[in-house]
Amino acid sequence: MNQIKRVVIFGGTHGNELTGIYLVKKFDRAPDLIERSTFETIAMLANPKACEIGKRYVDTDLNRCFLRQDLENTHLSSYEALRAQEIYRIFSSTKAQKSDLIVDLHSTTANMGITLILAVQHPFNLSLAAYLTSVYPELKIVASVTSNQDSSALRSISEWGFTLEVGPVAQGVLDARLFQQTEEIIGTMLDWVETYNQGTIAPIKSPLTIYQTVRAIDYPRNEKREIQAMIHPDLQFRDYKPLNPGDPMFLTFDGESVLYEGKSTVYPIFINEAAYYEKGIAMCFTQKQIVSQLAIDSWPVVRAVPRARPFSV
Amino acid sequence: MNQIKRVVIFGGTHGNELTGIYLVKKFDRAPDLIERSTFETIAMLANPKACEIGKRYVDTDLNRCFLRQDLENTHLSSYEALRAQEIYRIFSSTKAQKSDLIVDLHSTTANMGITLILAVQHPFNLSLAAYLTSVYPELKIVASVTSNQDSSALRSISEWGFTLEVGPVAQGVLDARLFQQTEEIIGTMLDWVETYNQGTIAPIKSPLTIYQTVRAIDYPRNEKREIQAMIHPDLQFRDYKPLNPGDPMFLTFDGESVLYEGKSTVYPIFINEAAYYEKGIAMCFTQKQIVSQLAIDSWPVVRAVPRARPFSV
Repeated sequence: MNQIKRVVIFGGTHGNELTGIYLVKKFDRAPDLIERSTFETIAMLANPKACEIGKRYVDTDLNRCFLRQDLENTHLSSYEALRAQEIYRIFSSTKAQKSDLIVDLHSTTANMGITLILAVQHPFNLSLAAYLTSVYPELKIVASVTSNQDSSALRSISEWGFTLEVGPVAQGVLDARLFQQTEEIIGTMLDWVETYNQGTIAPIKSPLTIYQTVRAIDYPRNEKREIQAMIHPDLQFRDYKPLNPGDPMFLTFDGESVLYEGKSTVYPIFINEAAYYEKGIAMCFTQKQIVSQLAIDSWPVVRAVPRARPFSV
Repeated sequence: MNQIKRVVIFGGTHGNELTGIYLVKKFDRAPDLIERSTFETIAMLANPKACEIGKRYVDTDLNRCFLRQDLENTHLSSYEALRAQEIYRIFSSTKAQKSDLIVDLHSTTANMGITLILAVQHPFNLSLAAYLTSVYPELKIVASVTSNQDSSALRSISEWGFTLEVGPVAQGVLDARLFQQTEEIIGTMLDWVETYNQGTIAPIKSPLTIYQTVRAIDYPRNEKREIQAMIHPDLQFRDYKPLNPGDPMFLTFDGESVLYEGKSTVYPIFINEAAYYEKGIAMCFTQKQIVSQLAIDSWPVVRAVPRARPFSV
């Protein structure tokens, strides 16, 4: 069993998501909060310039800059492309200064509570997720179907990296309760890694619910790409709730409902995320999966499979 | 009694407050929705460039550009300063093309529901406010103590102008329910103006509750102006609720409560508004006033008085 040697906590990958930024600042002032005996922990602002101006990004979304070909492309010149290359040089799993575990702190305007987004469904990740949900039953687990190799997200440069997403909270706003909950979960996560390193992890008996991303859904738009409808009031704030065929999804500005015409029940997340209007995403459909029995000594490797439309957060 | 000749509905004074922007676009497509027989109605984006880039402003906050000296200052060159001068030239009460009533549509991340912010407490405004609260009991009325002459807000260039503020909604997000409620209230307001013009307004018997702005409160900050605390969870989302001496206001990042040390009960609004972090405003204290009996034939002129610290929204 490989030991975790270093955990890197990134905040401010998006400069207007304050929870992570102020947590990193706090850990900077009080590093003992994230210190553990068997590994090193680093807290760092991923996009300091964006944090300074309080915007998601300066030139381009940093959390879409980690595709392998972009990280090796010497012709890129945007602030974020270069910053991604810098982060990759320092922390990539393939480098000597190996970062074993990246935790990337984000926030969302969607009503997603606290969500762990796993880069890959590796047994390490799954066991950590199962443990955290046993302590925090309200915590949600989302799994992307992109492999790290094909992902543009910061978390993907660490083999078992993940995103901690908290919401709903407006961009540029600190929500004290979410701040405290996030801090507590980070502490519990670090404690678990410590136990993992010490080889004393107890197997989790309870089944784990995973929301597997399926595809991103755009707003209805006209030929000029202007949106023609809003998230339906009956769907607003209902992240992780079942959306059944025939349920309302959108409401046009003239008050007409647009229904979900799919054939099977899905579980939308990132419903009405502010930053996704420009990306053409109104929500992301997920499927609910139950993973039963997670014994750390019987880790199966769950393979990532390509998906219909890239969706990263 | 002066008749209202024109109503101007502004949206997009801040380019990331989508409710007003999409309402103006809707009224543009369907002008019959805002047409009435006794006056003209115009719907217009106040800051089209900011709307295009989806940011509050391009160079500076447009809703702070309407001070009389700035409107006449030929040395100003920011996009918003010039746009304010352009709007003033077209719609100022003092000009030939007189705009009788400006309605400025905004949104806030604070939990303020739907709020009417009156530029001045003129009997016209008060009667309209009283009527609207009789139809929509949940509607809140805020009065600024700045006179139009001393105000930097867009609404101030119209004698009886007001702001319609809706929340909570994140910047860059459309909330369908708030969109529909705002549209309905605008319709009711236009109907009332029609009745006013026809001289058939019935006096409002029920008392009117007005939240009078007192002063803006900043976050605790260090010598570098960095914030040292968040809105306390017990205060978050409690706009318009009483804050009593000794109640918690802020929570430091280390978990210590900062209490309200004032001597009298206040009613905070704009609690945790995203756009006010950079302005040094964590919330605005108001005092609750009850105005009893509002008969349109006994309109007293309520004078604006200078306030301790300018607060405009």
